[in-house]
Amino acid sequence: MKLSEIASIISSEFNSDDMDITGINTLLDANENEISFVSNSKYIKDIKNTKAGAVLISKDLLEYIPTSTVALVTDNSYWSMAILSKHFAPLIEDESLDTPSIGEGSKVSAKAEIANGAVIGKNCTILAHVYVGANVVVGDNTILYPNVTVYRDCKIGSDCIIHANTVVGSDGFGFATNGMGEHKKIYQNGNAIIEDDVEIGSNTSIDRAVFGTTLIKKGVRIDNLVQIGHNCEVGEYSVFVAQSGSAGSTKFGRNVVMGGQSASAGHLSVAPFSTFAARSGITKTIKESGKTYAGFPLMEHKLWMKLQAKISRLLKK
Amino acid sequence: MKLSEIASIISSEFNSDDMDITGINTLLDANENEISFVSNSKYIKDIKNTKAGAVLISKDLLEYIPTSTVALVTDNSYWSMAILSKHFAPLIEDESLDTPSIGEGSKVSAKAEIANGAVIGKNCTILAHVYVGANVVVGDNTILYPNVTVYRDCKIGSDCIIHANTVVGSDGFGFATNGMGEHKKIYQNGNAIIEDDVEIGSNTSIDRAVFGTTLIKKGVRIDNLVQIGHNCEVGEYSVFVAQSGSAGSTKFGRNVVMGGQSASAGHLSVAPFSTFAARSGITKTIKESGKTYAGFPLMEHKLWMKLQAKISRLLKK
Amino acid sequence: MKLSEIASIISSEFNSDDMDITGINTLLDANENEISFVSNSKYIKDIKNTKAGAVLISKDLLEYIPTSTVALVTDNSYWSMAILSKHFAPLIEDESLDTPSIGEGSKVSAKAEIANGAVIGKNCTILAHVYVGANVVVGDNTILYPNVTVYRDCKIGSDCIIHANTVVGSDGFGFATNGMGEHKKIYQNGNAIIEDDVEIGSNTSIDRAVFGTTLIKKGVRIDNLVQIGHNCEVGEYSVFVAQSGSAGSTKFGRNVVMGGQSASAGHLSVAPFSTFAARSGITKTIKESGKTYAGFPLMEHKLWMKLQAKISRLLKK
Repeated sequence: MKLSEIASIISSEFNSDDMDITGINTLLDANENEISFVSNSKYIKDIKNTKAGAVLISKDLLEYIPTSTVALVTDNSYWSMAILSKHFAPLIEDESLDTPSIGEGSKVSAKAEIANGAVIGKNCTILAHVYVGANVVVGDNTILYPNVTVYRDCKIGSDCIIHANTVVGSDGFGFATNGMGEHKKIYQNGNAIIEDDVEIGSNTSIDRAVFGTTLIKKGVRIDNLVQIGHNCEVGEYSVFVAQSGSAGSTKFGRNVVMGGQSASAGHLSVAPFSTFAARSGITKTIKESGKTYAGFPLMEHKLWMKLQAKISRLLKK
Repeated sequence: MKLSEIASIISSEFNSDDMDITGINTLLDANENEISFVSNSKYIKDIKNTKAGAVLISKDLLEYIPTSTVALVTDNSYWSMAILSKHFAPLIEDESLDTPSIGEGSKVSAKAEIANGAVIGKNCTILAHVYVGANVVVGDNTILYPNVTVYRDCKIGSDCIIHANTVVGSDGFGFATNGMGEHKKIYQNGNAIIEDDVEIGSNTSIDRAVFGTTLIKKGVRIDNLVQIGHNCEVGEYSVFVAQSGSAGSTKFGRNVVMGGQSASAGHLSVAPFSTFAARSGITKTIKESGKTYAGFPLMEHKLWMKLQAKISRLLKK
Repeated sequence: MKLSEIASIISSEFNSDDMDITGINTLLDANENEISFVSNSKYIKDIKNTKAGAVLISKDLLEYIPTSTVALVTDNSYWSMAILSKHFAPLIEDESLDTPSIGEGSKVSAKAEIANGAVIGKNCTILAHVYVGANVVVGDNTILYPNVTVYRDCKIGSDCIIHANTVVGSDGFGFATNGMGEHKKIYQNGNAIIEDDVEIGSNTSIDRAVFGTTLIKKGVRIDNLVQIGHNCEVGEYSVFVAQSGSAGSTKFGRNVVMGGQSASAGHLSVAPFSTFAARSGITKTIKESGKTYAGFPLMEHKLWMKLQAKISRLLKK
């Protein structure tokens, strides 16, 4: 899409040279053909370092923009980005893509739906009522149980098992809100990637990224009814027990264990080999690896045990 | 159904004029062609004000019934109502209804099922393995992702997006229990209405009303794995984050934010612009609008922060 | 499978008489044609009492094995059992089984999938996009709403209602982990049985047993988004409210009520007529019946109320 067209869509003044914009991305991840956005002065350092071809930006931050980046001034750059995101959303299905490719030895139910552009590896089992979206790639020996839905552009590795009614790649929970309290959807144009040897339980939701990728690494085990927010990264061999979840953009190291009904806030980093007891609530980055936590607010498990003993003594006062 | 027939079904004595009864409803919502029920003396005021044509009622409350309402005396009016509810349940599917109507420009997968009586608007996208039940009405431009189920008689507005494997209109959790601890299903003969511009995540459950309507108002955003109980009302632009939920009959004002894994008890009222942190548990009506809460028991967020600091000091004692 | 073959699969020395092994089971449940496993000295009593034909066992526990049981020595018997479990897993679908049998008066959507070996009773309603696996037995008058998935070998009783997108019989969350933190799937070769007159809400997951059966007894009511772990037993007329759950192998007596978002740890026993308030967390066996609990850590509800009052007074200090 032409940058001049983008300026017109968001009603911003345009008086630079025109250029092709291929997508939206964050300040630090955008390349010279992408547009980014910023409205908060806490990102001044990122503005200075951006390689984005253009940025949706509020007037007061204009001075920090690199000379190689075109500024499109807007009162609410997050709202403008939301408007723009729809224009970069691909078709849900695209009949012009190749008919699906099914590898040797794979069994695909006649009652499954494999969209054009999908590529299924060898010796897979795809049961009835599964939906595999456009351009999805599935490795070898993978089993998709009935009623699994995989949205377009996602990737599932080899030797994976995804249990019934689980969803991979549904839209992350993203929207801008204006002063009237109205919401504008931010189209989630990223994807989700499930690496090899991952097992996911039933009725679980793995959201796709807004930009980039939600990543579930090799050997991960995810139980039933788990929520993985957009842009999360779950490290190798990590374990999410039933009804646990994470808000968006949190990075879990390898062999993290999230107990039943535990959860993490978004935009955090969790050190490898951390264990969280059932109902733990993580609200801060965990830097030291190998410890066990409990509670909400979170603390080390042994402290939590001690604290509960102290609390119970209140009954005797 | 004839009132005399109802009396016979629940084994109640019948010696009034006969009449046609078209449905069951609450004391205050029932009209002169409907039957209601009451067994608890705390509803005496409602009995006095009911416009119901008939009421299932325990002997001790008979004196409060208006002269225009016929009383059917029963030992356990709630159990009797449960028995009766089955007789008012419509067929799940009804082949005598019109073949579905699909609006211009709408794309419906050959692997979706649209039941007779359904009316789909213009430019909708209905993907594989979606189920749209009898008499369901869907507005224009709405997207139903794969494996979405919409039960009969529900309505989905225009410009809505419902993500994969979400259910709209499943039965609310309703049953009567007798002295032996056995349960009798209360058929949920109401519906669920999703207004325009609503987005609902994946694997979410929105229950239909027992009578009347579960209502999700314009512009609401609901995330993945959320539970909305029967007869709830969610106000305009309210937000339910992943794994949050509400028990039945709670009314949320506009722009309420329910954090991740938060929940509300049933039969409450929540003031507009209230915000509930992750894991909040609402057990009382919130009257004042615009405040932020946390915890279970619930308190203002700043108090909760202070309280957690006080609690952590117990460790030093 | 020959025991000599098993020894070869797990690289264990084999110098006993050969025999046929029909399955894997626990020390106490295994019969003379089954193989069991043990690596922990706390099960010495069970080793002494096992009737298993063979046992995967660590060297240090060899002395406790009955003379009628063959020992296969292995460094990590749990890991060896995981490897072995795959070899006892039946095919997901098996075309050599009989074509499905559908009882008189049952309506099965042309868009449902009923696998070979399944037997559906009389007057059932099976809606579009339902999946009924191999050898599944469904009783009479049962309703399976759209997108329900029932895995192979499970049983659903008569007069049951299973709401949309619910899964019965998905694999329990079972795996062995080695010293490198890598996981090996334990194939869940048991099943799940739902007895008569059970209603299960939408988007709920009932896992199949690793060995034996996950059992939901007569008259149980399970709401939406509930997790029932492998090998649980839920007693007659028990009630699980939305978003509640249980880890594996816990036995609930009759008429237990699990409030919204409550949960139980695994391997416990919960006395009949126990009631757990919303968000309760059960971590110990409940022996006395008929009491009401709350909190996490769990305590009697009246104590929890008192404790919350005490805690709130900390704010005044």
